Amino acid sequence: MEEAPKPIRCKAAVSRAAGEPLRMEEVEVAPPKDYEVRIKILCTSLCHTDLTFWRMKDSIAMFPVIFGHEAVGVVESVGGRVEDVTVGDMVVPTFLAQCGDCVDCGSDKSNICSRLPYRPGMPRDGTSRFTDVMGATVHNFISVSSFCEYTVVDVAHIAKVDPAIPPEKACLLSCGVSTGLGAAWKVAAVEAGSTVAIFGLGAVGLAVAEGARIRGAARIIGVDLNSDKFEIGKKVGMTDFINPREIGEKSVSEVIKEMTDGGADYCFECIGLASLMSEAFRSSRLGWGKTIILGLDAHGSISIPSHEILHGKSVIGSLFGGIKCKTDIPILVKQYLNKELQLDVFITHQLGFNDINKAFELLEQGKSLRCIIWMDKEKEKKIEM
Amino acid sequence: MEEAPKPIRCKAAVSRAAGEPLRMEEVEVAPPKDYEVRIKILCTSLCHTDLTFWRMKDSIAMFPVIFGHEAVGVVESVGGRVEDVTVGDMVVPTFLAQCGDCVDCGSDKSNICSRLPYRPGMPRDGTSRFTDVMGATVHNFISVSSFCEYTVVDVAHIAKVDPAIPPEKACLLSCGVSTGLGAAWKVAAVEAGSTVAIFGLGAVGLAVAEGARIRGAARIIGVDLNSDKFEIGKKVGMTDFINPREIGEKSVSEVIKEMTDGGADYCFECIGLASLMSEAFRSSRLGWGKTIILGLDAHGSISIPSHEILHGKSVIGSLFGGIKCKTDIPILVKQYLNKELQLDVFITHQLGFNDINKAFELLEQGKSLRCIIWMDKEKEKKIEM
Repeated sequence: MEEAPKPIRCKAAVSRAAGEPLRMEEVEVAPPKDYEVRIKILCTSLCHTDLTFWRMKDSIAMFPVIFGHEAVGVVESVGGRVEDVTVGDMVVPTFLAQCGDCVDCGSDKSNICSRLPYRPGMPRDGTSRFTDVMGATVHNFISVSSFCEYTVVDVAHIAKVDPAIPPEKACLLSCGVSTGLGAAWKVAAVEAGSTVAIFGLGAVGLAVAEGARIRGAARIIGVDLNSDKFEIGKKVGMTDFINPREIGEKSVSEVIKEMTDGGADYCFECIGLASLMSEAFRSSRLGWGKTIILGLDAHGSISIPSHEILHGKSVIGSLFGGIKCKTDIPILVKQYLNKELQLDVFITHQLGFNDINKAFELLEQGKSLRCIIWMDKEKEKKIEM
Repeated sequence: MEEAPKPIRCKAAVSRAAGEPLRMEEVEVAPPKDYEVRIKILCTSLCHTDLTFWRMKDSIAMFPVIFGHEAVGVVESVGGRVEDVTVGDMVVPTFLAQCGDCVDCGSDKSNICSRLPYRPGMPRDGTSRFTDVMGATVHNFISVSSFCEYTVVDVAHIAKVDPAIPPEKACLLSCGVSTGLGAAWKVAAVEAGSTVAIFGLGAVGLAVAEGARIRGAARIIGVDLNSDKFEIGKKVGMTDFINPREIGEKSVSEVIKEMTDGGADYCFECIGLASLMSEAFRSSRLGWGKTIILGLDAHGSISIPSHEILHGKSVIGSLFGGIKCKTDIPILVKQYLNKELQLDVFITHQLGFNDINKAFELLEQGKSLRCIIWMDKEKEKKIEM
């Protein structure tokens, strides 16, 4: 019989209070329980969702916590009842589960696993596998907690990937970039020759462009307040760019309708502003114009004029771009290895784990798309955009 | 050479002021121009859209007008460039066009003809073919104007139908009943075994039920303030009924979520109340729940919580249930003749043309689903519900 996994002491970037810098601390990572896998993180990156929760002063109950939910790692040990993966496998953890058995996992129409719904903490019991040096619990963040050298993840929340993909590229597929790619591929099912408008050109928005490019969109219009985004956008197929501050009295939807003879076929909102969601809707064409909501406006509601939606328009929302982790991430990896999918463009910075707070600054200041944070100092490097 | 069609003097029910009873008058119906067809109306029926415009006191410019847009008739004469139909054909006029040549008519995704968009008056020039005894124009209503013994309709606005179908059944397919059937069939594409909730059980809502029944829905939940609707609903496959006044403190969406273990697969709003559209949305399940908007709230906007749509939910609007008149109405006629589609249930009353104001009263009081109004007095009959 194999020896049972033991607790591991390692380094974590712990968030102890909203908005304050993470602190490098020693933590203890408990062994994986049934259906769980302990992963040695190779690299992780920072997503806007981490920033949003980190700033959230009204949810004191969640601190102290280990943030991070975009990552790639190697399986260090497995708990009972784990069949999908084994020690040494390269895996990508994801905040959304794919249990494989529920009615949603069994349907092509949903990626919202109904047996293990999105929640804080470990998915089956809401607990955490982390304790600090005083023995106190450090909370788990949306079933991943990758800002730690080791983490425990439920087997329903991981995708096994081909180790031929470089870790930093696999890391991108863990959340934001997959969300954008999936939105164009699985949610909108963008058609060859169609017109696409993308509101917000962070990593998610640019990944929508890359997904639309792969699917043969004829025209990809980017909308962002930072005009520098057009240059990077061109690398992922963007054909046109609108800076809302540079169109005078006109609204963005008026400009898009003029450019596209009535409106775009597909409009993607990638920021999380209710007012922008409504503007995206207005930018879509009558007859079949589809608006895809990828951003979250936590307390906002989208306002849809009744007379306008009646002309065949639609609005659909999506978490994680309709991606099912186990089914779809390996397909994206294959597309990358086949040189069909570009990923390099999304990595603007790379840092060592000790410099993680710098990654927060870069994202907050809008300077980075994705900053790869390497756990192993040997790989530490920095690439300025 | 055939003799050119001449003007016809005949009887019309003219609306001269908002909300006032229609007046039976003699009118002159001009010959059909290019792309137009003059139709001898066999029977017509009254739809809520007629009522809405009839009551609309702020659009004085449209009066006097000949309302009516649900009908069936026989082609009396044709103008130039008409190839689809010939004198003697049985035809159903529709308020939405299918020109057959534009990008929308060429797409499976749209039924909103972009060459001849929905507008008041004759579709190509906005004029009318009606004049009153003083020689003044009597306006055309949404390209049909069927409250007249003869009317002129653009060839893009008619479907040729198999004359084996009784006229009063064909008449139903001209607007409301097709809208409901099409919404279940073409817009939602309801799947066998699925759950459906229908808000508002007029002719459109009950036709959604019939469409969902034909497609094999496992559960069809009707919502209406009139509990009598459940009996007629059962005839078109309704399995459950909710009267919002009889569920105490609970909201309709709470009751539907309890009944369906999380929400219905498809929710249809058939009234035209923005608040009810939002409630329909809340009643749909996470993952793939689809809300289909069939009613118009002229000045209202649907409010969609951002956090809720993000879980894979969607909202789609539709005019005429996604039906393309020339392509789809003949299919519905065939389904009726094959006894797959039930239409009898929708006809609750039948009257002669002279009694048309009685049809307005019946619909306003919620007593009728569809009241067939026969132009030929010989066929005059009355069936009480």
